[in-house]
Amino acid sequence: MAASSSSSSVVSSSSSSSSDKGSGRVLQFDAFQSLVDEGFWHRLSSLKLDSLGLDQSPVPLTGFYAPCSHPKVSNRLTLLAESLPSDFKELQFSLERAHGNRNRCPVPGTLYNMNTFESFKALDRDSLLKKEAKKILDDIHSGKVEEDSAVLSRFFIISFADLKKWNFLHWLAFPALVVGPPAMVLDLRPAREVFNQGEVQSLSAALNEWRKSSLTTGVLYFLVSIASNSHATIRQLKDWKACQDDGQKLLFGFYDPSCRLDNPGWPLRNYLAFISLRCQDGKIQFLCYREKRGFADMGLSLVGEAVISPSKDCSDPQCVPKAVGWEPKPKSINLAESMNPERLAVSAADLNLKLMRWRQLPSLDLGTLSSVRCLLLGAGTLGCQVARMLMAWGVRKITLLDSGLVAMSNPVRQSLYTLDDCLDGGSLKAVAAARTLKRIFPAVEAEGVTLSIPMPGHPVPTNEVARVLEDCERLRDLIASHDVTFLLTDTRESRWLPALLCASENKIAITAALGFDSYLVMRHGAGPLYVSDQTNSLSTVDGNGGQRLGCYFCGDIVAPIDSTSNRTLDQQCTVTRPGLAPIASALAVELLVGLLHHPNGIHAPGEIANSIMSSSEQPFGILPHQIRGLLPQYSQVTLIGHASNSCTACSTTVVSEFRRRGMEFILQAIDHPTYLEDLTGLTELIESANSFKLDWDDETDDSDM
Amino acid sequence: MAASSSSSSVVSSSSSSSSDKGSGRVLQFDAFQSLVDEGFWHRLSSLKLDSLGLDQSPVPLTGFYAPCSHPKVSNRLTLLAESLPSDFKELQFSLERAHGNRNRCPVPGTLYNMNTFESFKALDRDSLLKKEAKKILDDIHSGKVEEDSAVLSRFFIISFADLKKWNFLHWLAFPALVVGPPAMVLDLRPAREVFNQGEVQSLSAALNEWRKSSLTTGVLYFLVSIASNSHATIRQLKDWKACQDDGQKLLFGFYDPSCRLDNPGWPLRNYLAFISLRCQDGKIQFLCYREKRGFADMGLSLVGEAVISPSKDCSDPQCVPKAVGWEPKPKSINLAESMNPERLAVSAADLNLKLMRWRQLPSLDLGTLSSVRCLLLGAGTLGCQVARMLMAWGVRKITLLDSGLVAMSNPVRQSLYTLDDCLDGGSLKAVAAARTLKRIFPAVEAEGVTLSIPMPGHPVPTNEVARVLEDCERLRDLIASHDVTFLLTDTRESRWLPALLCASENKIAITAALGFDSYLVMRHGAGPLYVSDQTNSLSTVDGNGGQRLGCYFCGDIVAPIDSTSNRTLDQQCTVTRPGLAPIASALAVELLVGLLHHPNGIHAPGEIANSIMSSSEQPFGILPHQIRGLLPQYSQVTLIGHASNSCTACSTTVVSEFRRRGMEFILQAIDHPTYLEDLTGLTELIESANSFKLDWDDETDDSDM
Repeated sequence: MAASSSSSSVVSSSSSSSSDKGSGRVLQFDAFQSLVDEGFWHRLSSLKLDSLGLDQSPVPLTGFYAPCSHPKVSNRLTLLAESLPSDFKELQFSLERAHGNRNRCPVPGTLYNMNTFESFKALDRDSLLKKEAKKILDDIHSGKVEEDSAVLSRFFIISFADLKKWNFLHWLAFPALVVGPPAMVLDLRPAREVFNQGEVQSLSAALNEWRKSSLTTGVLYFLVSIASNSHATIRQLKDWKACQDDGQKLLFGFYDPSCRLDNPGWPLRNYLAFISLRCQDGKIQFLCYREKRGFADMGLSLVGEAVISPSKDCSDPQCVPKAVGWEPKPKSINLAESMNPERLAVSAADLNLKLMRWRQLPSLDLGTLSSVRCLLLGAGTLGCQVARMLMAWGVRKITLLDSGLVAMSNPVRQSLYTLDDCLDGGSLKAVAAARTLKRIFPAVEAEGVTLSIPMPGHPVPTNEVARVLEDCERLRDLIASHDVTFLLTDTRESRWLPALLCASENKIAITAALGFDSYLVMRHGAGPLYVSDQTNSLSTVDGNGGQRLGCYFCGDIVAPIDSTSNRTLDQQCTVTRPGLAPIASALAVELLVGLLHHPNGIHAPGEIANSIMSSSEQPFGILPHQIRGLLPQYSQVTLIGHASNSCTACSTTVVSEFRRRGMEFILQAIDHPTYLEDLTGLTELIESANSFKLDWDDETDDSDM
Repeated sequence: MAASSSSSSVVSSSSSSSSDKGSGRVLQFDAFQSLVDEGFWHRLSSLKLDSLGLDQSPVPLTGFYAPCSHPKVSNRLTLLAESLPSDFKELQFSLERAHGNRNRCPVPGTLYNMNTFESFKALDRDSLLKKEAKKILDDIHSGKVEEDSAVLSRFFIISFADLKKWNFLHWLAFPALVVGPPAMVLDLRPAREVFNQGEVQSLSAALNEWRKSSLTTGVLYFLVSIASNSHATIRQLKDWKACQDDGQKLLFGFYDPSCRLDNPGWPLRNYLAFISLRCQDGKIQFLCYREKRGFADMGLSLVGEAVISPSKDCSDPQCVPKAVGWEPKPKSINLAESMNPERLAVSAADLNLKLMRWRQLPSLDLGTLSSVRCLLLGAGTLGCQVARMLMAWGVRKITLLDSGLVAMSNPVRQSLYTLDDCLDGGSLKAVAAARTLKRIFPAVEAEGVTLSIPMPGHPVPTNEVARVLEDCERLRDLIASHDVTFLLTDTRESRWLPALLCASENKIAITAALGFDSYLVMRHGAGPLYVSDQTNSLSTVDGNGGQRLGCYFCGDIVAPIDSTSNRTLDQQCTVTRPGLAPIASALAVELLVGLLHHPNGIHAPGEIANSIMSSSEQPFGILPHQIRGLLPQYSQVTLIGHASNSCTACSTTVVSEFRRRGMEFILQAIDHPTYLEDLTGLTELIESANSFKLDWDDETDDSDM
């Protein structure tokens, strides 16, 4: 910490001598004290994270104080949440808005918030004090004080906000100009003792009127003119010349925060400097205005007489003034304890994300992320991990859908479950997963939906048709009411209906699928009926005239069928290398975050690594269509697969038919998978079109739910 | 299910007529019943997962039964854990070992365990019954029955074991040959009523003797010869010719599991077939031997007289016999409820891993994985995820080391914590992480160690030297007592001491480090003093004469220093894209699993994707040295970096100096980082050696703990 001798110049009340009136001793001042409300630090935290980032520029502040209103308690300069601008756009906000509250007379200040503890310690406090005092001196010389006297009480604060621990270190200063020899006090007494009865009454009435008017209630410095007939008038500082000349008794009045009877408060210091530089030197009278129960109190208010010397030192506007005014020591406040855990959790969770915007990702749109509604189909290995990744990215609205119960084999791979969830037959997966998400982060809006996705090749018995139709409609409603659907189920055929519904609703769909040691992550292209109003033949053309991106089924040449019956145990369930699911889940969410930040959204073209349209400029990097990885080679590639006119899930033919016939169409597709092949002409396609063939093997069937 | 009319042929006791002795009615038999102990299914589960895999070959079994020993309760054919071989090598195990227990007379059987429910249903049970009956017929024709009569009671069982749900579906059959017209019963009475007093006494004594001898106690079929002086002799079946010729009264005796007085038990059926084919037809006498309290009981034992016809149908050894013998219906047993949750969890957790061995990874060594001791330095985002991945791979011994408390910002990224861990100032991270691991999988041996890793560039105040030395020694002991150390801390300098200790102890070290949108995963090379007994100059040469692989510091040209002080918030803490940590953690564990399966272990050379030494043949794929990924390009590459003679962590110079001077050396390195540079000659290196330069940028400093 840079040494500062100036703080010792602050007069503590105990060092002031007793009131031997008129003895010509050096006038001493009761030191000003500050009080920083917790709300100030909360506002600062938000401002830092959301707007300032690494910017260490000084931040304009408004402090508040009022005349002392209690015989034993001095008023303090108070910093509240409103002392700070609420966001960056307001950084130049005016003091005006704070006018009109008699208990909060606004004073301008400056915040120097440092990014590190080291830079806080390294601040040269002497220079800073001089720099701030110079502003006051400039305002005196320029005449600004006469227009807005509050600048005489200008203050500043240096701070370091440890936003991880919610600890706030700060040190405040009230710069006081040292412009010449100290003022000598000749007399200092309660106003009641100085003035006659008539003067006291008239002055009280005038001051109460002044304080009542919203125009003047916050004006800290003023003039008191007392006529020989005891009539007192309160006037603006800019009228000092007129007052001086009118031959009446003139007192320099100010709102005194101090309660001490033997010393005036700190604001008088700069007032005297102003008076000596702009008004007069020699003998002057001043009024320390104080109140009781909201009215002028002539017993508490002091009247003083002092002799001030001409301020030789600072009559030159270019001079760098000496100054004092640091509070005795820095203060530290920790808010973690006073915040409720949920609020702390929200702040903490946002912290890492907001920090990203300081340097690496200024364009990160946390508002979009926190409001995007994500539907996760499958709450297994992929679903659990995708939900965790979404929360880590600041997504706050997550719905998980699953029809199963938590099985004993789940917890070691499915990261939202513990053994407790397996007892008594096992909890419903979707419900248990949502419950855990809330335990991790209470502010998440997580919901679990227990629903079985109807699948082609799994014909529906007559007595279950009603239930299946209901499930279809519920799934459709869920997809429609969310912005993004993740396809994370463990069979190919369970992805068909969601893929179709997303294509029909033109919703973002992200697929993650696992083989034994390979993975596929892809985003489905936009829905076919949203890219063009033209005929079916144009359904694979996107808005830019390029080919629409494909969905999970676009590369297939057979309709999805029942892939689970008659499978051995290792084919039925989660037989994948454990590392795959976290990798694929992470990539799926990163892909979504990239997509949400792309100006074209769901219509964004597919990019491949090191492609010509170099996206290295883009903060999130490229936005691929498909990412495929092979663990045995530790390799990963990006691919583009275009939409197929014969796709059983997203082609115009299928989507149109679904829209025309609705659930009847779905039931037919479920009961008779060849119906889809007939409808889309897949049989013909097998012979003619290898052009879009993707060599992904069938192992993606063995995917992990 | 293939229809089978045969099961209706099993005579239920209710359908047998009352005992009208000597009426010449058709002889009917009390159906045999089975009892399968839970232990059998547990053993089968292990055998299936550990040895059989997808192999559906018939498995030889041993069933057990004994003569009826209770007037109201028939004995059952019982399958126990010991009925199955305990592992694959024992599949050809002999029945001999089971001899000698009077209550467990062994009978051979066969298990047909199907891989799917569908294949279970699809079994042709009629054919199977005929095939098994044919074995009995063959044993009769070949004379094997005379040597080992138990084959007459041969049984078999078809099953489908759902090892995910612990459900076991099974159907048992006791094949009974139908070789000619049914036998006609002439007389069937308790032995006491048939024999005179002397015969009863002699017979009882002889039978008790037979049952007492460990050589004969388990022999199910035997001959009873009664002399005219009432003296009874028990003889082996192979003696039937001699008995037949000696003119004494001959009875065909067998251990009868049935308790019924009006019917003989099921084993008599094949006995009669044997008698008609090998011994005689016409009128024969038989003894249904039964016991009470361990002794022959002539009131429960029955003596019968029957007429058997010559078996025309099956006198030809090539004939395929008709047969009956299915139990009335399949049975299903679920063991999940009877198992304690912890045991179920262990079984379930192993399930997916064991399934891998069936098809994709037959060489997967679960024994190694479950016994490997892993030390995780850092219980943050990487540490939590690495621990989860290890558990998913079957690693059971995990120690987590961290010095911190769980902070509010942790749970959304650090997957072993919830909000509860953050309350009241936060739990110790290492302890909380270990606790959660046990909640996920109670059988894990997880331990949390709260320890701060001493770091170069963080000088030690005098009053803390003792503590730091203690920490150093504790860390050394931890690394020595584990097989693998993961370096997952959030600064470069905290990785130095662990890297040095791993090099000195020649322990496997795996590093994962994150930048803002990039990651590095690497395995450190073997320790320099373990690859060669030669001079220091050879320290970078590995056992094969190639260059030793590098450690995390081999590419550096400066010693590690304090990288956290004076950093802004976004540089100090976890500012990485959330997807990185799960990816890097998954790759780190996959890399370890590959390494543990490599025949050269820590000395395995580094491989790169599609390298000449094609490892595509290897089930785990290539074994890279370093994997580096760049999220903006969704790209990932494998690299090899060789050990540097000037490495501040793993060079012979450093390791030798550490061994010579121990903790004194560590303290010097911590207090004076330039000491390391002087020692290793890094300064010279900067000028001369760019040969091994790795272009990984300094962002790895900003890694995630």
